[in-house]
Parts: sequence; C-alpha cells; structure tokens
Amino acid sequence: MIISMKPDATQDQIDHVCERIREFGYKVHSIQGEERVVIGVIGVGDVTACLEAIEVAPGVASAVRISSPFKFVIKEFKQQRTQIPINGVSIGGDQFVVMAGPCSVESEKQIMEAAEFVASVGGKILRGGAFKPRTSPYSFQGLGEDALKLLKEVATTLDMRVITEVLSSEDLPLIEKYADILQVGTRNMFNYSLLKSIGKIRKPVLLKRGFMATIDEFILAAEYIYNGGNEQIILCERGIRTFETQTRNTLDISAIPILKMETSLPVIVDISHSLGRKDIVLPIAHASLAAGADGLMFESHFNPAAAWSDSQQQLDLKESEDLIRYLEKYFKF
Amino acid sequence: MIISMKPDATQDQIDHVCERIREFGYKVHSIQGEERVVIGVIGVGDVTACLEAIEVAPGVASAVRISSPFKFVIKEFKQQRTQIPINGVSIGGDQFVVMAGPCSVESEKQIMEAAEFVASVGGKILRGGAFKPRTSPYSFQGLGEDALKLLKEVATTLDMRVITEVLSSEDLPLIEKYADILQVGTRNMFNYSLLKSIGKIRKPVLLKRGFMATIDEFILAAEYIYNGGNEQIILCERGIRTFETQTRNTLDISAIPILKMETSLPVIVDISHSLGRKDIVLPIAHASLAAGADGLMFESHFNPAAAWSDSQQQLDLKESEDLIRYLEKYFKF
Amino acid sequence: MIISMKPDATQDQIDHVCERIREFGYKVHSIQGEERVVIGVIGVGDVTACLEAIEVAPGVASAVRISSPFKFVIKEFKQQRTQIPINGVSIGGDQFVVMAGPCSVESEKQIMEAAEFVASVGGKILRGGAFKPRTSPYSFQGLGEDALKLLKEVATTLDMRVITEVLSSEDLPLIEKYADILQVGTRNMFNYSLLKSIGKIRKPVLLKRGFMATIDEFILAAEYIYNGGNEQIILCERGIRTFETQTRNTLDISAIPILKMETSLPVIVDISHSLGRKDIVLPIAHASLAAGADGLMFESHFNPAAAWSDSQQQLDLKESEDLIRYLEKYFKF
Amino acid sequence: MIISMKPDATQDQIDHVCERIREFGYKVHSIQGEERVVIGVIGVGDVTACLEAIEVAPGVASAVRISSPFKFVIKEFKQQRTQIPINGVSIGGDQFVVMAGPCSVESEKQIMEAAEFVASVGGKILRGGAFKPRTSPYSFQGLGEDALKLLKEVATTLDMRVITEVLSSEDLPLIEKYADILQVGTRNMFNYSLLKSIGKIRKPVLLKRGFMATIDEFILAAEYIYNGGNEQIILCERGIRTFETQTRNTLDISAIPILKMETSLPVIVDISHSLGRKDIVLPIAHASLAAGADGLMFESHFNPAAAWSDSQQQLDLKESEDLIRYLEKYFKF
Repeated sequence: MIISMKPDATQDQIDHVCERIREFGYKVHSIQGEERVVIGVIGVGDVTACLEAIEVAPGVASAVRISSPFKFVIKEFKQQRTQIPINGVSIGGDQFVVMAGPCSVESEKQIMEAAEFVASVGGKILRGGAFKPRTSPYSFQGLGEDALKLLKEVATTLDMRVITEVLSSEDLPLIEKYADILQVGTRNMFNYSLLKSIGKIRKPVLLKRGFMATIDEFILAAEYIYNGGNEQIILCERGIRTFETQTRNTLDISAIPILKMETSLPVIVDISHSLGRKDIVLPIAHASLAAGADGLMFESHFNPAAAWSDSQQQLDLKESEDLIRYLEKYFKF
Repeated sequence: MIISMKPDATQDQIDHVCERIREFGYKVHSIQGEERVVIGVIGVGDVTACLEAIEVAPGVASAVRISSPFKFVIKEFKQQRTQIPINGVSIGGDQFVVMAGPCSVESEKQIMEAAEFVASVGGKILRGGAFKPRTSPYSFQGLGEDALKLLKEVATTLDMRVITEVLSSEDLPLIEKYADILQVGTRNMFNYSLLKSIGKIRKPVLLKRGFMATIDEFILAAEYIYNGGNEQIILCERGIRTFETQTRNTLDISAIPILKMETSLPVIVDISHSLGRKDIVLPIAHASLAAGADGLMFESHFNPAAAWSDSQQQLDLKESEDLIRYLEKYFKF
Repeated sequence: MIISMKPDATQDQIDHVCERIREFGYKVHSIQGEERVVIGVIGVGDVTACLEAIEVAPGVASAVRISSPFKFVIKEFKQQRTQIPINGVSIGGDQFVVMAGPCSVESEKQIMEAAEFVASVGGKILRGGAFKPRTSPYSFQGLGEDALKLLKEVATTLDMRVITEVLSSEDLPLIEKYADILQVGTRNMFNYSLLKSIGKIRKPVLLKRGFMATIDEFILAAEYIYNGGNEQIILCERGIRTFETQTRNTLDISAIPILKMETSLPVIVDISHSLGRKDIVLPIAHASLAAGADGLMFESHFNPAAAWSDSQQQLDLKESEDLIRYLEKYFKF
Repeated sequence: MIISMKPDATQDQIDHVCERIREFGYKVHSIQGEERVVIGVIGVGDVTACLEAIEVAPGVASAVRISSPFKFVIKEFKQQRTQIPINGVSIGGDQFVVMAGPCSVESEKQIMEAAEFVASVGGKILRGGAFKPRTSPYSFQGLGEDALKLLKEVATTLDMRVITEVLSSEDLPLIEKYADILQVGTRNMFNYSLLKSIGKIRKPVLLKRGFMATIDEFILAAEYIYNGGNEQIILCERGIRTFETQTRNTLDISAIPILKMETSLPVIVDISHSLGRKDIVLPIAHASLAAGADGLMFESHFNPAAAWSDSQQQLDLKESEDLIRYLEKYFKF
C-alpha cells in the first residue's frame, strides 16, 4: 500500500494515519516529497480493511494497493528522481559524472598519478580497490587499510570523492571511515547479509548488478538496502554473462531506461567491466549516456601495461581525456 | 592471403598476379578499391611458397597472410566502408535510414495506410512480411505473393523501396521480382543453404543476426553470401537470447561498433525485435545510433492493437513521428 | 479440441463426427489408437458451439478443448508411445539404439571401416554427413551424392540403416533415395520451410533441438513436420548454448523426461555434440539412458586423429566398444 | 609445483624439502596420502630454480610444475578421492547419501514430522533452513537460532546429522554449535569473504555452485575454503541459469563427472533447486547417480502445500519413499 497525503495535510493527520496503519499490524515508512508526504506500508495484514479505514482518514489524498514486489525504490513512491549529493558533487542531476581510477591501489605513487589525471580530465570521483574479490585465492587480494588511507589522502589533496568496494560487513566500519561512496560488487549483489549491513550505513552506496541477475532481482537488492534505511543508492549496470565472447560481458543497454522508469535512482554504467576491451569504449560510452545513464565508471591507470590486475581494460591518460572530450560534445559534464 | 597492388599497378600486372596465384591452386577474388586493387586469395595450398612468389611480382605493394576466418567482408580487404545505393537511397553513408512498416501485410488498406505514414515521417524503405516464419504451424503464415504485389504497388506509388523476408530458396525468384532488399531472418542466419542461394542474387540483402549467434558466426554468415558473389550486404543486430526477461531479447549494443570495426558493411538495428516493448524505444534508438548504427528498423502499424501479429511492439503514427523527430535532433536523417 | 471415440464406436459414427467438425470450419486429423479412435481438430472456429454439438454425437466418449499450442505430437492425442520401425530396427521400444559413424563421409575405405566397427559393436544405424553445415564457407562442405552412395552401399552390405542430414529442400529427393532416416540439424530447427518440406516425406526424421531453442519451440518444430503428415519423428537432444565452456554445449538432461512426458515421440541424445569431448562420454551416456532416452548418437571414426572435421570428439573402435559394453550392463540393447 | 616424495622418504627428508622450498619464498602445503607424502607449493618465486633444487633432493620421487589455477582440491594433489565421515555417515564412498528436509524450519511439529519421514526412508542427513536468503526483503527470512535448536534436537533424537546454510560470517559461531555440515548457498559462492571465514572452521562444508558460475569458478571457490585449511568440502551441483524455462535452472549433468575428474571431492546434486518441479525427479535423480554423483539433496515436507516457501518442489512422504526405493534398485544406499 502507498498512501499519498494531501499537500496541505497537517502533521497530526499524518501521525494519525501512521498510527492507524500500525494498528493493522503493518510497518510504516513515510517520506517527505517535494509537495506532499507519501507513506509506504509493508508487512502482512488485512489489506482491504486497512485500505478502507485509511481512505477516509482526514488528510489522505489517495491510498492504493501495490502489487509490485518493489516498494520503496520505485518511482511511484518517490515521485521524483533521487539526487545524491556528495560533498558538492551531485549524482543523478543533469550533468553526467565520471568515476575513474585504477582497478586496485598499488602504491602511493601509482594512486597519486592516477588521481591527478582523473582530476585533470574533470573527474571528481576516484575509484580504487582496497579489497579485491579475486576468483582465485592466489591472485593479489588488495592492500587493505593502507590502500584506503592512500585513497583518502590523495582525494583530499585533489578535492575528490572516494568510492571503494566493500567485501564483507566486518570491513564496513573501516571503509566507512575513508570512503565517500561504498560499492557493492557484482559478486555480492546476492549477498543479502552484506546488503542488510549496508542498509544501516548512512553513506551513498553504488550497487552493481550481479552479472547473472535479472533487472527485477537487481531492484530487489536495492530494496534490501533501502529497507534498512539507507536511501542513497546508485545503481550500476555492468554487463551480464551471455554466450557472446567478443566482450567480457554483454552490456544490457536496455536496463538503463528500464531502471530509470521503474525506480527513482540514478544509474551509472561501468564500461570497463562490461566490455573488457578498450577499442569500443567511445561509442559504447556515448550509447550509455544516450540511453539515459547518469554517469560512467571506468578503470584508468597511468601505465596500464604495468597494472597488477585487469590491465587490458584500463584507459591511459590520453584515452581518458579523449573519452571525456568526446562525450562533452553531446552531454553536460 | 590478401594482396594489395600498388596504386599505379597496370592491368597486366594485376592479371599476372592472379594467374600466378591460381597456379598455386588457389581461387582469386579481386576488388577495385578507391585507390588500388586488392586481391583476396582463398583455398588450400602452399601459403609460404605462394607468398614468396607474389611479394616480388611487379606492381605488388604488399602480400599478407591473414589468419582471420573471415576473408572478404573484413575491413582490411575492402579498405573503405561499403555504401549500398538502392534507387537513390544510400545505406551506410552519413545519414541514418529508417526501415518501417507492419510485421505482416494484411490488406491493401492496411499496407497503404502504413506506407503513407512511414513516408510521412520521412522513411524511404517499407518493410512488410509476405511469408512469416512463425514458431507454431498454426499461426498466420503470411499472404505470400499477394502481399508482395501490394508492397510493390504501394511502394511505387509513394516512391519507396521494399524490404521483405525470404524463407526459402524456392521463393527467391518470386521475391526478387518485387523486393528491393531481401531479408534473411534471425531463424535462418544458420541456414547456409539459403545463404548460398542469396549469394547468387544481385540485390542488396539485409542479414539479421541469429538470436543465438556469436558476432563471429554472424560475420561468417555474411561471408557465405559474399563468397557467392553478392557484396551488397547490410548487417542487422536484433538482440540475442539471454536470461533477462524484461526485454524480449537483449540488444547487444557492443556488436554495433565491433561489426563496424571488423567488417566494411553497414549495420542496422532492429529495435522492435530487440526490445519487444515500446516504452524504451526512444533511448534505445538514440543509443543505437550513438554506438554507430547506420539506421533503424522498426515495426509500425496504423492501428497496432488490431495487428495480426506482434501487436505490442508496433509503433503507431504518433510514436513513429516522435521517434524520428527526436533522433533528428542528434543525427542526420 | 481432441475427441476420443468410444472403443466400440462404428466407422459410420466416426465419419459422422468428422463431418460435423468440418461443418464448423475445422480441419480433422484422426488417429487409430490401440483401443480407440482419437480425432484432433485444428483451425479457427466457434469452439464452444462445436464442442456442444460433438459431445452428444453417438459414439463420442469425450470432447475436450486443449489450450496447448501443441496439437498432434502430444501424448494426450497419441495415447501411446510412438515406435518407429526401420526395416527391422525399432526406435522407441524397450531397447536402446545406437546411431554411430563419422562426422562426414570422406572415402569408401573410411566409411567401410567405420561402418564395420559400428556393426561390430552391435550398432544398426550408420550416420555420416554428405552435406555439412559448416560455420565457415571455407571449411569442407561434404562429398554430396558420392557420400550418399557410399553410405547406402556400405549399409546394404552390413545390413545397417543410414541416417544423414538434409540441409535444404532441394536435396530432399536425392537424400530420400539413399537414406533410411532424414536428419534435421540443430542449425535448421528453426528453418520452417525445410520442416514443411520434410512433413511431406514419408520417411522417419530425426529432428535435432536448436542449440538455443526452448523445449516448447522444439516441440513446435516437430508439430510442423507432423502437421505436414509425417508422423515418424524422432527427437534429438544435443545440448544448448550456455555460458559454461568446459563442454561444447550444456546437455539439458531434464529435456529428456519432459519431452517424453509431453510428446509421444522417441528421444535420442547426441552425446558427441553435447559434450565436444570424449573423457566423460561413459557417465553421460549412462545418465542419458537413465533419464529415459531411447538411444544415443555419437561420432565414431576408425582413426579420429585423421578425421577431417570434429576430430576431438569422435570415438575410436575401442572407445565405442567400451561404451556399448558398459551401457549393456544397465540397459537392454 | 607439486612434489611427490618417495614412499620410503623419511620425515627428515620431507622437512628438508619443505625448508628448501620456503627458502625460495614459497608457502608449503603437505599432505599425507595413503602411500606417500605430497607437497603442494604456492606463491610467487623462481619456479625453475626451485624445481631444479628440489628434483635432486633426497627422498623426492618427482617435482612437477602445474599450470592449473587450482592447487589443492585437484586429484593430482590428493591422489585419492576424499571421503568425508560425519559421525558414522560417510560422504563420497560407494553408497549414495540423501540430504532431505524442508526448505525452512517453521515449527517443532513440522520439523519433527519432516525428520521422521526422512529417517523412515533411510535418510541420515537432515536439511532445514534457519536463515533464508530470499530475493525479496519482504519474504520470510527464517527463524534463526530457534530453528537451529529445533534441528539439533530433532536430529539427536533420530540419530541424524544436520546441514544448514550460513549466510554471513557473523552467524558462523552460532551455526557451528548446532550443525554437522555447513552449507554455502548458490548466491554466496562468489562471496569470498564468507569462503575465507569457512576455511577456518573445522567442520564439513557443502559448497553449492553459483547459478551463474562456470565449473572452473566453482573449483576456485572450493580452493578458497581449502586454502584456509578446511579440507572437508562437498561440492553441490544445483543447476545453472539459462534461457530454458521448463525447469527453474538447467541441471549441468556434465559437471558431475568433470568435478570428479578434476577434484578429489565428493559431488552431491540438489535436485529440487535444479528442477523446481517434482514430476521429473525420478529420472533426473537416476541420471545424477548414473553420472557419478555421491548423493542427492532434495526438499521434503510433511505437507508441501502448506509450506511457507518453495512449496511446489518439495516432495511429500510418499514421493520421497518412491524416489529412494527406485534408486536403491540401481545403486547402493
């Protein structure tokens, strides 16, 4: 059920409605929209009786039963697009954002050089892995807290924001200290335990689509976070696993407008992991923004050939610059 | 092997090279490029000896062994993009083309109305099914020659070109009589027998990607047609089968720049069959052109609700118009 | 609609029912089961009125509306499993059959040696490609009629039956002359034009599942053949395309019992093309028969290393023998 | 590198070899096989120099470089199949095991009834969810510790072992207290943080294949657990996500023999989640054991229609009994 209050409903009327709903055994989730308060109702109870009771309550504009398995991230509930402000950078507005940086943090020199050139092309969000989810236990697993410190230091110097991946709830307090945006990786989209922990945090989260998750499962993963109380969610399309092998994954371009229609959340495209190759980055980045994406994430490295992981898909300075300059011709940056 | 002749090579020199190649047991396929003649060599023989002999022949600029399984549709061979002129309409140039019309031809009134509004939005190519490849033998199978006649008649009246699908070699002589572009549907991309027959025709062919075909298999299907002597091939990306169910197929947006990098052929996107829904047509059409597509194919119907097949994905007049007007803001039409 | 007549219904009663159905504009397809006549009704008409009229006709046991898109290959219609007798070999009975032989016919010596060892392990059906559907136009395309003659000759000498693939309707008269079973390959399962042509033939057909076809699409392809009047259809599961790369395709083991529940047709498993490797043939062949398959198809070659195509997956004499001896321990051969 | 010591190598010789390897900067992982000690070497170092030094060391039978990304779970290393004894029940021997019980624990009455009938058909391992990984945050999430207590209590009464799923490292101490086998679910196979935590536990683990994981990724996930020191790993094939919709997932039957060839670990098949339907359980269970599975897991419920989750795929008492009696005809139970 979603209850829309009249624009001029008083706080008393709102409180009264919430109270009535709770009497029916439901939980209440209210949100202050631009014009009015909207109340989301969840739980199990006698829907019909509750609806009847609420419809006639003072201050109520409408009360509708929703059959959607999604509750809060949907557009009907939010009524307007969610913009996520991060210390002066806004995600989900009319300018596209760029999140760039190396796959993993390797050294102070490397991350400083990387950050400088992300900044030099106008990027305001620095990405870098401190904890890496590697398929093999024998691959490089990341520098941990040292990497976080380096990221924060460099970002502060250059007035950038930091995004980094969280692999487990245990690391959350540590990462929360250093990062501006927490990232849930593709392999953890179905890790509901982690999603619940992140729901309790009050920092923006970038949630990557599982490489074999349907769009509906992706939205439900966002619901897990939202349901915990964290409403600052950025969705990230990063390709799905198919039979095609020319690209590492198949970028699901249609997911972009569908996510923007069904939810109120900003949508970012990770072009590096979608493609796994650099030679088609320009047209695909262009296509992503054309489809409605609010920004791009890509891996960049001062010297990709020397990178410790995923070196083939990391853009060097020249390539990063060319990409941004190309996109600026068509979209606001 | 691909042999590039010098720009000033004489016809005698070219003939001599071809002769020498044939002496090694190979077949020869030469092409007059803008600046020079390029000679493709296929078959089984002593590559090393042949290369050695040819490299030093008069008029030869370079002779390279190619390991690619593709021979003729590749860019290295053609050296320039293929443009396909169809009675004044050019596919593969700097303007995007639109191929629109109903899924299947149902009546004179229906096809005339459909054609009129395709023409009214500036579309020059009329699509319409005369023979339909339906999954169930009990579904409507198309009107056959009657449909072809109607298409031709209407197109002539409105100065449009006709594209229609070929289901079997037996129908080729009939369809060739009426259509300006022959279409090979997604279910027949692996029908090598049909591809060979079409290779012998001298009319443009639009080859749809099999919904289960890799990009490499798609290019090899084009090779089948090219190898028969028909060089006027238009590739059409139309989505692949994946686990995602929000769209009928998953549009492989990356296929567009890859096909344009690896082959010289124009690439069209069938947005109706990729998506199977209309509400995201605008951003996806925009994305397709942004990725480099040379045109769009979509289903349109005067009264989609009354269409005999695939009614949910057919655009009505207003929607078609909105689409074209929206795209014109960004690309040349 | 499916009409079951009473076991003691007279021919006059049956004729009367068929006539009434036709008056309603339907086509009639009757079948003599073991105990009773069953009448299938197809076409478009007033179902309710027709049902009402037929239900009360003399001799009618029951008349039911069926919503299934499948009509004739389904179990409800046939009421008993279809057995396909081929000159003394029965497919679909209580013994499993083996169809073996080389991928393609290369020479008289090769096919005779291959046939001899298929016969030596008890195989009664010889497979061999005369026309090969190769992904690249530059790969070996088969010996054509010469191959057919060799197959027939060798099979006659050794009292075996021949199965070979049909690539196009044009080749049908030729292939019909030599083969005992016609094969529709995986790339042609969606080639409805070919399926219709084969529906007119009166020889058994082995229909391979498209490597990206759902089970429902597979059954509908069988309907195309059945609808043409050819009821001797053998279904062949041969793996589907997925993201897994350890096997060439992913054998859909569940398809076997589903096909046997939903249709009356025998089901064969092509283990060579499912797996693309030989080292797990034993357990997978065992599993296939355990799941209910009526037989196995596999590629065998006197000297696999020297084969002209698909050499890695062809079983040699010893491996073929081991396979059959192993399976005989569990199932009747 | 894998070093095989001679059968009569002394402890001193073994220690010496380990020491030398460590001098080259590697980590050592030695295992006492039935006949000899085998030493696994991991890390980064000068392989060639190390090999040369070790090959000539006293007591060394052979030293080989392995290129496989898998190190410890592979057969070459273990040299014999791993059997996992769990209080008198052995997994991976010549008898197949059955793990059955309800999807989630709902009440004492329900779990007691369920356990009694699992025991009555000869099942010795009781499964039941205490913490449920539900796609929607609004679905029933499990009873938690209460469920664990009920499981343990009931299992003790009936002399059964308990298997239950772990969703997060935080729950490990709790679950370890009650369960005999820890289960990692399909959604957590890529949750490397959880895999590492479980590697530190000294209880058997059943690792389910991710529904989107290749066989290689699955084996690497097992490596994560093994690398932590927990060698008691049971692999569980449970179907992969494909385009086919007749079954909930597509059981990858070929994975069974491949996993048994490449690793030394026992392999179990979860038929309930593979299929999502009950009508083909008999043939598919038969096929799974025929392909080499060491046991089956399935959901069973006293009254499936009343179950709180996944009710359609749970077997009732009669169906469970029929299944076991049917399989006993072919395999040792």
